[in-house]
Amino acid sequence: MANIKKMLNAHPRRSHVDADAFAKCAEEVSACAQTCVSCADACLAEDNVGPLVRCIRTNLDCADVCGATSRLVSRLTEYDWGLLESQLRACVAACRICSAECDKHASKHEHCKICAQVCRECAEACDELVSEVPARK
Amino acid sequence: MANIKKMLNAHPRRSHVDADAFAKCAEEVSACAQTCVSCADACLAEDNVGPLVRCIRTNLDCADVCGATSRLVSRLTEYDWGLLESQLRACVAACRICSAECDKHASKHEHCKICAQVCRECAEACDELVSEVPARK
Amino acid sequence: MANIKKMLNAHPRRSHVDADAFAKCAEEVSACAQTCVSCADACLAEDNVGPLVRCIRTNLDCADVCGATSRLVSRLTEYDWGLLESQLRACVAACRICSAECDKHASKHEHCKICAQVCRECAEACDELVSEVPARK
Amino acid sequence: MANIKKMLNAHPRRSHVDADAFAKCAEEVSACAQTCVSCADACLAEDNVGPLVRCIRTNLDCADVCGATSRLVSRLTEYDWGLLESQLRACVAACRICSAECDKHASKHEHCKICAQVCRECAEACDELVSEVPARK
Repeated sequence: MANIKKMLNAHPRRSHVDADAFAKCAEEVSACAQTCVSCADACLAEDNVGPLVRCIRTNLDCADVCGATSRLVSRLTEYDWGLLESQLRACVAACRICSAECDKHASKHEHCKICAQVCRECAEACDELVSEVPARK
Repeated sequence: MANIKKMLNAHPRRSHVDADAFAKCAEEVSACAQTCVSCADACLAEDNVGPLVRCIRTNLDCADVCGATSRLVSRLTEYDWGLLESQLRACVAACRICSAECDKHASKHEHCKICAQVCRECAEACDELVSEVPARK
Repeated sequence: MANIKKMLNAHPRRSHVDADAFAKCAEEVSACAQTCVSCADACLAEDNVGPLVRCIRTNLDCADVCGATSRLVSRLTEYDWGLLESQLRACVAACRICSAECDKHASKHEHCKICAQVCRECAEACDELVSEVPARK
Repeated sequence: MANIKKMLNAHPRRSHVDADAFAKCAEEVSACAQTCVSCADACLAEDNVGPLVRCIRTNLDCADVCGATSRLVSRLTEYDWGLLESQLRACVAACRICSAECDKHASKHEHCKICAQVCRECAEACDELVSEVPARK
């Protein structure tokens, strides 16, 4: 079992939320943040950086937005659904832009292919957690 | 002049955006991120932490969301207005929740009073940058 | 295979370093950062926060130091061993302080028990990567 | 007065440390983190990215290390001098490498010239705080 799932199951307020849904999302955004840091760096090391400038920018943004989202969904104490929903929506936006851009370079660069897929899965996990929000408010 | 203003004025793509509006917002979110880290820590050191638990949580969230926003608005290369708007809205949400919570403790704790004010100014700066978005799309 | 391992194996400069050693360390520091964010939050939700104040502080520090370290070891392009070694040593220090503090509360709080173990494994992974440094200089 | 100085002066444990020295350092590392994010982005927008690849990498590392350091020195509760010293040393290393690299491009790119100067001032501020450490242990 992933560490974050064990942690949220051991949280004193685990019963207030669907801790597994939070853990699933937390795992994905954390993996996506790291993947995007790495993809920006791999793009930077390619022989011809020019066509990858937009990809590097979207990778860096996606890494930062996923990093902040990862911290929010790793906390269960006194959360605010409105903020959570708002940050998750920003995260979905970042992941969709990044996966679309990485897809353009996927046939040439394996790191972009992997990153596009990771971003897609992350957007889905965030979308799923957002879909839980209205019922909770 | 603040460093970030000098930096954005020296950016090769400064003419594509209102660099001063970006710099103003970047300065505020960066200051707000640091203020919230400090307020969470000051709350934690108070004799009776119990009534400050929600304040600490909102401070930590606001610090993380402002931190990510600070990085996005410090970049001018190949930006995406949709993502920028989405992250700025999450930042406004975080700052408003945090200033409202800090206001409750402002009469007792000077650090909460200062933090509430910094969060309010940050929300305004983000709102102003959002209001620039539609014209640019 | 973990995403970061796949990413570093697809990196244009993978042959310059032991990409697997970097991937192993990157995975651990990223998991540790998230675990520490969660442990700080779980401590904050306990009935009696007082005895956990120092634990929350060390968790927050460890989360931040691991987060930065995670980004550095996820990059292979034009790295600087001196900086890497220096940041890895700071990360080992953060993880050891945090695991020692969490150990004190492990019998009472399952989240502290898990976190202590994750920090210990993270310190080991960072130590191992540091031990590779002299041979590379 | 800068916000962080006001905050640390309002902290319940301000008398345990030289709060002004912490505030000075916190201000510098926060400004340096943002400046480095911006310099990496400005380098990425230059016509010929190739000669700036190492500069972008050092900027990104310096931004991350300064970001984590900023959070540590913004906290006064239950700090650990050993960890603080270790992270400040990593920060000095990051700033020196980054200022040296930016200096190489300073005659061509104003953003690198500004960034080199900001990194130098940040390294000095961290060095000064480190020099306070032995007396405190």
